[in-house]
Amino acid sequence: MIPISLPVDLAVCAPKGLSVPLERSQAEDLTRVLKAIADPTRLQLLSLINSEPESKACVCDMAEAVELSQPTISHHLKVLTDAGLLERDRQGTWVWYSLNVDQWSRLQKVLG
Amino acid sequence: MIPISLPVDLAVCAPKGLSVPLERSQAEDLTRVLKAIADPTRLQLLSLINSEPESKACVCDMAEAVELSQPTISHHLKVLTDAGLLERDRQGTWVWYSLNVDQWSRLQKVLG
Repeated sequence: MIPISLPVDLAVCAPKGLSVPLERSQAEDLTRVLKAIADPTRLQLLSLINSEPESKACVCDMAEAVELSQPTISHHLKVLTDAGLLERDRQGTWVWYSLNVDQWSRLQKVLG
Repeated sequence: MIPISLPVDLAVCAPKGLSVPLERSQAEDLTRVLKAIADPTRLQLLSLINSEPESKACVCDMAEAVELSQPTISHHLKVLTDAGLLERDRQGTWVWYSLNVDQWSRLQKVLG
């Protein structure tokens, strides 16, 4: 049983993607990752981070663009981080977020 | 306004994927497609179809594998078809489902 706060390892949960019948537990793990991105606000945040210089952004950068409060944005970023899709890097007062390229690459393979 | 029964055209809704900031309407269209696959039963059905000879299957093939009734499976297949992820081909009594390769390819690009 994987605790909810640990990112899903897609390479383990669905190593052959959709090319072989998925077990229920594999399908549930993959669903966790997909549900994390299946949200318009989270997709907007991902695209904002990805289009920033060096593909990293802090909450302060994002609040204005999506017109949401910083606590709301932080909640959405936590969902994405818990799914392994974002990485956090604290620098002084601010936390910077960047895409976890490995997890995105695995997700692409799973859906390929 | 796109009727709910028309598949989302990912090439139109997010032509540059997550590499530029998504508009809200683009993020909502993309969310519709992602929500369609973010379900363990639907992921299992997709993997079953994809692993069949010629990557096509009918409801009769799938009912036993996922231990669900045919009406329940048909509902899930309709959600996937409405999102443009599956294609239907009626042959006599049965409807055969196959993956819409173009839509999957676009989804991969959007997430790439």
